[in-house]
Amino acid sequence: MTGQTADRSVAHATFTIERRYAAAPARVFKAFEDPAQKRRWFVEGEGWEIESFEMDFRVGGFERSSFRFQGGPLVTNETIYQDIVPEKRIIVAYRMTVGGNPISASLATMQFEPDGKGTRLVFTEQDAFLDGYDDVGQREEGCRELLEALAKELDR
Amino acid sequence: MTGQTADRSVAHATFTIERRYAAAPARVFKAFEDPAQKRRWFVEGEGWEIESFEMDFRVGGFERSSFRFQGGPLVTNETIYQDIVPEKRIIVAYRMTVGGNPISASLATMQFEPDGKGTRLVFTEQDAFLDGYDDVGQREEGCRELLEALAKELDR
Repeated sequence: MTGQTADRSVAHATFTIERRYAAAPARVFKAFEDPAQKRRWFVEGEGWEIESFEMDFRVGGFERSSFRFQGGPLVTNETIYQDIVPEKRIIVAYRMTVGGNPISASLATMQFEPDGKGTRLVFTEQDAFLDGYDDVGQREEGCRELLEALAKELDR
Repeated sequence: MTGQTADRSVAHATFTIERRYAAAPARVFKAFEDPAQKRRWFVEGEGWEIESFEMDFRVGGFERSSFRFQGGPLVTNETIYQDIVPEKRIIVAYRMTVGGNPISASLATMQFEPDGKGTRLVFTEQDAFLDGYDDVGQREEGCRELLEALAKELDR
Protein backbone atom coordinates (compact mmCIF):
# COMPACT_ATOMS: atom_id res chain seq x y z
CA MET A 1 0.00 0.00 0.00
CA THR A 2 2.76 2.43 -0.94
CA GLY A 3 2.13 5.66 -2.75
CA GLN A 4 -1.61 5.64 -2.09
CA THR A 5 -3.52 8.88 -1.89
CA ALA A 6 -7.01 9.71 -0.69
CA ASP A 7 -8.20 10.01 -4.30
CA ARG A 8 -9.94 6.86 -5.38
CA SER A 9 -11.52 6.05 -8.68
CA VAL A 10 -12.70 3.04 -10.62
CA ALA A 11 -13.06 3.06 -14.40
CA HIS A 12 -14.99 0.08 -15.79
CA ALA A 13 -14.42 -1.06 -19.36
CA THR A 14 -14.89 -4.04 -21.65
CA PHE A 15 -13.03 -4.95 -24.82
CA THR A 16 -12.93 -7.91 -27.19
CA ILE A 17 -10.10 -9.09 -29.42
CA GLU A 18 -10.61 -11.74 -32.10
CA ARG A 19 -7.62 -13.49 -33.56
CA ARG A 20 -7.09 -16.43 -35.87
CA TYR A 21 -4.36 -19.04 -35.42
CA ALA A 22 -3.36 -21.69 -37.96
CA ALA A 23 -3.14 -24.32 -35.19
CA ALA A 24 -6.19 -26.34 -34.10
CA PRO A 25 -8.06 -25.53 -30.85
CA ALA A 26 -6.43 -28.44 -28.97
CA ARG A 27 -2.96 -27.06 -29.79
CA VAL A 28 -3.85 -23.46 -28.88
CA PHE A 29 -5.48 -24.59 -25.63
CA LYS A 30 -2.30 -26.53 -24.76
CA ALA A 31 -0.31 -23.28 -24.87
CA PHE A 32 -2.53 -22.01 -22.03
CA GLU A 33 -2.52 -25.28 -20.09
CA ASP A 34 1.18 -26.18 -20.16
CA PRO A 35 3.23 -24.12 -17.65
CA ALA A 36 6.44 -24.12 -19.73
CA GLN A 37 4.61 -22.85 -22.82
CA LYS A 38 2.47 -20.35 -20.90
CA ARG A 39 5.53 -18.91 -19.16
CA ARG A 40 7.29 -18.49 -22.50
CA TRP A 41 4.62 -16.49 -24.31
CA PHE A 42 2.85 -14.89 -21.37
CA VAL A 43 5.64 -13.61 -19.11
CA GLU A 44 8.99 -13.88 -20.89
CA GLY A 45 10.04 -11.27 -23.42
CA GLU A 46 12.88 -8.93 -24.33
CA GLY A 47 13.56 -6.43 -21.56
CA TRP A 48 11.43 -8.28 -19.00
CA GLU A 49 13.04 -9.77 -15.88
CA ILE A 50 10.92 -12.54 -14.35
CA GLU A 51 11.03 -12.67 -10.55
CA SER A 52 8.52 -15.49 -10.11
CA PHE A 53 6.04 -17.62 -12.05
CA GLU A 54 3.84 -20.43 -10.80
CA MET A 55 0.60 -21.84 -12.11
CA ASP A 56 -1.96 -24.45 -11.11
CA PHE A 57 -4.25 -24.92 -14.10
CA ARG A 58 -7.57 -26.01 -12.57
CA VAL A 59 -10.73 -24.22 -11.51
CA GLY A 60 -9.91 -22.46 -8.23
CA GLY A 61 -6.18 -22.77 -8.90
CA PHE A 62 -3.87 -19.76 -8.93
CA GLU A 63 -1.38 -18.43 -11.43
CA ARG A 64 1.00 -15.90 -9.93
CA SER A 65 3.77 -14.00 -11.65
CA SER A 66 5.98 -11.04 -10.83
CA PHE A 67 8.36 -9.23 -13.15
CA ARG A 68 10.04 -5.93 -13.97
CA PHE A 69 10.54 -4.15 -17.26
CA GLN A 70 14.10 -2.84 -17.73
CA GLY A 71 14.72 -2.44 -13.98
CA GLY A 72 11.42 -0.65 -13.37
CA PRO A 73 8.97 -1.22 -10.49
CA LEU A 74 7.81 -4.71 -9.60
CA VAL A 75 4.67 -5.75 -11.45
CA THR A 76 2.54 -8.57 -10.03
CA ASN A 77 -0.29 -10.58 -11.56
CA GLU A 78 -2.41 -12.81 -9.35
CA THR A 79 -4.80 -14.89 -11.42
CA ILE A 80 -7.43 -17.40 -10.30
CA TYR A 81 -8.99 -19.82 -12.78
CA GLN A 82 -12.77 -19.37 -12.75
CA ASP A 83 -13.86 -21.78 -15.49
CA ILE A 84 -12.11 -24.29 -17.73
CA VAL A 85 -13.71 -26.33 -20.53
CA PRO A 86 -10.89 -28.25 -22.25
CA GLU A 87 -10.13 -26.99 -25.77
CA LYS A 88 -13.13 -24.65 -25.61
CA ARG A 89 -13.05 -22.04 -22.87
CA ILE A 90 -10.94 -20.53 -20.08
CA ILE A 91 -12.14 -17.78 -17.74
CA VAL A 92 -9.82 -16.12 -15.24
CA ALA A 93 -10.07 -13.33 -12.71
CA TYR A 94 -6.86 -11.42 -12.10
CA ARG A 95 -5.55 -8.47 -10.17
CA MET A 96 -2.41 -6.52 -10.96
CA THR A 97 -0.16 -4.27 -8.92
CA VAL A 98 2.72 -1.99 -9.96
CA GLY A 99 5.20 -0.86 -7.32
CA GLY A 100 2.82 -2.12 -4.64
CA ASN A 101 -0.19 -0.18 -5.96
CA PRO A 102 -3.26 -2.12 -7.08
CA ILE A 103 -3.94 -1.03 -10.65
CA SER A 104 -6.77 -3.30 -11.82
CA ALA A 105 -9.12 -6.19 -11.23
CA SER A 106 -10.26 -8.03 -14.34
CA LEU A 107 -12.29 -10.91 -15.69
CA ALA A 108 -10.93 -12.39 -18.91
CA THR A 109 -12.75 -14.96 -21.09
CA MET A 110 -10.96 -16.93 -23.80
CA GLN A 111 -13.14 -18.88 -26.23
CA PHE A 112 -11.52 -21.30 -28.67
CA GLU A 113 -13.57 -22.04 -31.79
CA PRO A 114 -12.64 -24.28 -34.73
CA ASP A 115 -12.10 -22.22 -37.89
CA GLY A 116 -11.28 -24.55 -40.77
CA LYS A 117 -8.13 -26.35 -39.63
CA GLY A 118 -7.26 -23.45 -37.34
CA THR A 119 -8.69 -21.63 -34.35
CA ARG A 120 -10.64 -18.45 -33.87
CA LEU A 121 -9.80 -17.10 -30.41
CA VAL A 122 -12.28 -14.64 -28.94
CA PHE A 123 -10.73 -12.82 -26.00
CA THR A 124 -13.11 -10.70 -23.91
CA GLU A 125 -11.88 -8.70 -20.95
CA GLN A 126 -14.02 -6.87 -18.39
CA ASP A 127 -11.96 -4.49 -16.26
CA ALA A 128 -12.07 -2.30 -13.22
CA PHE A 129 -9.12 0.11 -13.53
CA LEU A 130 -8.13 1.58 -10.19
CA ASP A 131 -7.12 5.08 -9.18
CA GLY A 132 -5.95 6.14 -12.64
CA TYR A 133 -3.02 3.72 -12.82
CA ASP A 134 -4.05 2.02 -16.06
CA ASP A 135 -6.66 2.38 -18.79
CA VAL A 136 -8.44 0.30 -21.39
CA GLY A 137 -6.28 1.52 -24.28
CA GLN A 138 -3.04 0.39 -22.65
CA ARG A 139 -4.58 -2.87 -21.48
CA GLU A 140 -6.00 -3.78 -24.87
CA GLU A 141 -2.64 -2.99 -26.48
CA GLY A 142 -0.88 -5.23 -23.93
CA CYS A 143 -3.32 -8.08 -24.59
CA ARG A 144 -2.85 -7.77 -28.37
CA GLU A 145 0.92 -8.07 -27.84
CA LEU A 146 0.39 -11.22 -25.72
CA LEU A 147 -1.83 -12.80 -28.37
CA GLU A 148 0.90 -12.03 -30.93
CA ALA A 149 3.47 -13.69 -28.63
CA LEU A 150 1.14 -16.71 -28.50
CA ALA A 151 1.24 -16.88 -32.31
CA LYS A 152 5.05 -17.05 -32.16
CA GLU A 153 4.85 -19.79 -29.50
CA LEU A 154 2.57 -21.83 -31.77
CA ASP A 155 5.10 -21.42 -34.61
CA ARG A 156 8.00 -22.81 -32.57
CA MET B 1 -19.64 -31.52 -14.10
CA THR B 2 -23.11 -33.07 -14.09
CA GLY B 3 -25.67 -32.34 -16.75
CA GLN B 4 -23.16 -30.75 -19.12
CA THR B 5 -23.70 -30.87 -22.83
CA ALA B 6 -21.45 -30.15 -25.76
CA ASP B 7 -23.18 -26.79 -26.27
CA ARG B 8 -21.16 -24.02 -24.73
CA SER B 9 -21.89 -20.35 -24.68
CA VAL B 10 -20.78 -17.24 -22.84
CA ALA B 11 -22.95 -14.12 -22.58
CA HIS B 12 -21.09 -11.05 -21.31
CA ALA B 13 -23.00 -8.25 -19.62
CA THR B 14 -22.51 -5.27 -17.31
CA PHE B 15 -25.02 -3.57 -15.05
CA THR B 16 -24.92 -0.86 -12.40
CA ILE B 17 -27.24 -0.33 -9.44
CA GLU B 18 -27.16 2.86 -7.38
CA ARG B 19 -28.77 2.90 -3.98
CA ARG B 20 -28.86 5.33 -1.08
CA TYR B 21 -28.68 4.30 2.57
CA ALA B 22 -29.35 6.55 5.57
CA ALA B 23 -26.30 5.10 7.40
CA ALA B 24 -22.82 6.57 6.92
CA PRO B 25 -20.20 4.82 4.71
CA ALA B 26 -18.34 3.41 7.75
CA ARG B 27 -21.54 1.68 8.91
CA VAL B 28 -22.46 0.35 5.48
CA PHE B 29 -18.91 -0.91 4.92
CA LYS B 30 -19.08 -2.72 8.28
CA ALA B 31 -22.05 -4.76 7.03
CA PHE B 32 -19.75 -6.13 4.31
CA GLU B 33 -16.74 -6.62 6.61
CA ASP B 34 -18.35 -8.32 9.60
CA PRO B 35 -19.05 -12.03 8.95
CA ALA B 36 -22.14 -12.19 11.22
CA GLN B 37 -23.75 -9.20 9.49
CA LYS B 38 -22.73 -10.30 6.00
CA ARG B 39 -24.16 -13.78 6.56
CA ARG B 40 -27.46 -12.30 7.75
CA TRP B 41 -28.19 -10.06 4.78
CA PHE B 42 -26.25 -11.87 2.07
CA VAL B 43 -27.10 -15.56 2.52
CA GLU B 44 -29.93 -15.93 5.04
CA GLY B 45 -33.52 -15.38 3.98
CA GLU B 46 -36.95 -16.98 4.08
CA GLY B 47 -36.99 -20.27 2.20
CA TRP B 48 -33.19 -20.49 1.98
CA GLU B 49 -31.32 -23.31 3.73
CA ILE B 50 -27.66 -22.45 4.36
CA GLU B 51 -25.30 -25.43 4.05
CA SER B 52 -22.08 -23.49 4.60
CA PHE B 53 -20.73 -19.97 4.95
CA GLU B 54 -17.19 -18.83 5.61
CA MET B 55 -15.42 -15.59 4.86
CA ASP B 56 -11.93 -14.13 5.14
CA PHE B 57 -12.26 -10.42 4.47
CA ARG B 58 -8.87 -9.44 3.06
CA VAL B 59 -7.42 -9.06 -0.42
CA GLY B 60 -6.80 -12.60 -1.69
CA GLY B 61 -9.14 -14.04 0.96
CA PHE B 62 -12.11 -16.24 0.06
CA GLU B 63 -15.78 -16.10 0.90
CA ARG B 64 -17.56 -19.38 0.22
CA SER B 65 -21.21 -20.15 0.69
CA SER B 66 -23.57 -22.95 -0.33
CA PHE B 67 -27.33 -23.02 0.04
CA ARG B 68 -30.60 -24.35 -1.33
CA PHE B 69 -33.89 -22.63 -1.98
CA GLN B 70 -36.88 -24.65 -0.73
CA GLY B 71 -35.12 -28.00 -1.11
CA GLY B 72 -33.90 -27.23 -4.64
CA PRO B 73 -30.45 -27.93 -6.10
CA LEU B 74 -27.32 -26.89 -4.23
CA VAL B 75 -26.14 -23.39 -5.14
CA THR B 76 -22.52 -22.43 -4.47
CA ASN B 77 -20.79 -19.06 -4.48
CA GLU B 78 -17.00 -18.90 -4.36
CA THR B 79 -15.81 -15.33 -3.97
CA ILE B 80 -12.26 -13.97 -3.80
CA TYR B 81 -11.61 -10.44 -2.57
CA GLN B 82 -9.73 -8.51 -5.27
CA ASP B 83 -9.50 -5.04 -3.75
CA ILE B 84 -10.48 -3.47 -0.43
CA VAL B 85 -10.21 0.21 0.51
CA PRO B 86 -11.79 0.61 3.96
CA GLU B 87 -15.09 2.51 3.90
CA LYS B 88 -14.62 3.29 0.20
CA ARG B 89 -14.40 0.31 -2.11
CA ILE B 90 -14.65 -3.48 -2.32
CA ILE B 91 -14.06 -5.50 -5.49
CA VAL B 92 -14.72 -9.23 -5.64
CA ALA B 93 -14.54 -11.93 -8.27
CA TYR B 94 -17.00 -14.77 -7.84
CA ARG B 95 -18.15 -17.91 -9.55
CA MET B 96 -21.47 -19.64 -9.01
CA THR B 97 -22.69 -23.17 -9.61
CA VAL B 98 -26.20 -24.65 -9.46
CA GLY B 99 -26.58 -28.41 -9.11
CA GLY B 100 -22.88 -28.78 -9.96
CA ASN B 101 -23.08 -26.73 -13.17
CA PRO B 102 -21.00 -23.56 -13.44
CA ILE B 103 -23.46 -20.76 -14.26
CA SER B 104 -21.36 -17.60 -14.10
CA ALA B 105 -18.08 -15.84 -13.40
CA SER B 106 -18.37 -12.22 -12.29
CA LEU B 107 -16.48 -9.16 -11.15
CA ALA B 108 -18.43 -6.94 -8.75
CA THR B 109 -17.35 -3.46 -7.62
CA MET B 110 -18.95 -1.73 -4.64
CA GLN B 111 -18.18 1.96 -4.17
CA PHE B 112 -19.26 3.72 -0.98
CA GLU B 113 -19.62 7.49 -1.28
CA PRO B 114 -20.74 9.96 1.39
CA ASP B 115 -24.15 11.46 0.55
CA GLY B 116 -25.12 13.98 3.22
CA LYS B 117 -25.16 11.91 6.42
CA GLY B 118 -25.84 8.77 4.42
CA THR B 119 -24.18 6.66 1.76
CA ARG B 120 -24.54 6.36 -1.97
CA LEU B 121 -23.61 2.80 -2.93
CA VAL B 122 -22.67 2.25 -6.56
CA PHE B 123 -22.71 -1.45 -7.39
CA THR B 124 -21.25 -2.42 -10.77
CA GLU B 125 -21.19 -6.01 -11.93
CA GLN B 126 -19.42 -7.39 -15.00
CA ASP B 127 -20.56 -10.91 -15.84
CA ALA B 128 -19.81 -13.90 -17.98
CA PHE B 129 -22.98 -16.04 -17.97
CA LEU B 130 -22.27 -19.63 -18.92
CA ASP B 131 -24.13 -22.08 -21.13
CA GLY B 132 -27.51 -20.36 -20.79
CA TYR B 133 -27.93 -21.07 -17.07
CA ASP B 134 -28.43 -17.46 -15.98
CA ASP B 135 -28.87 -14.04 -17.53
CA VAL B 136 -28.35 -10.39 -16.69
CA GLY B 137 -32.02 -9.73 -15.92
CA GLN B 138 -32.19 -12.41 -13.25
CA ARG B 139 -28.81 -11.45 -11.84
CA GLU B 140 -29.63 -7.76 -11.58
CA GLU B 141 -32.93 -8.62 -9.90
CA GLY B 142 -31.09 -10.85 -7.40
CA CYS B 143 -28.57 -8.11 -6.63
CA ARG B 144 -31.36 -5.55 -6.08
CA GLU B 145 -32.94 -7.93 -3.57
CA LEU B 146 -29.62 -8.30 -1.76
CA LEU B 147 -29.15 -4.53 -1.57
CA GLU B 148 -32.68 -4.29 -0.15
CA ALA B 149 -31.77 -6.96 2.44
CA LEU B 150 -28.73 -4.83 3.31
CA ALA B 151 -31.06 -1.89 3.99
CA LYS B 152 -32.99 -4.04 6.48
CA GLU B 153 -29.72 -5.14 8.13
CA LEU B 154 -28.73 -1.48 8.57
CA ASP B 155 -32.13 -0.80 10.20
CA ARG B 156 -31.73 -3.54 12.82
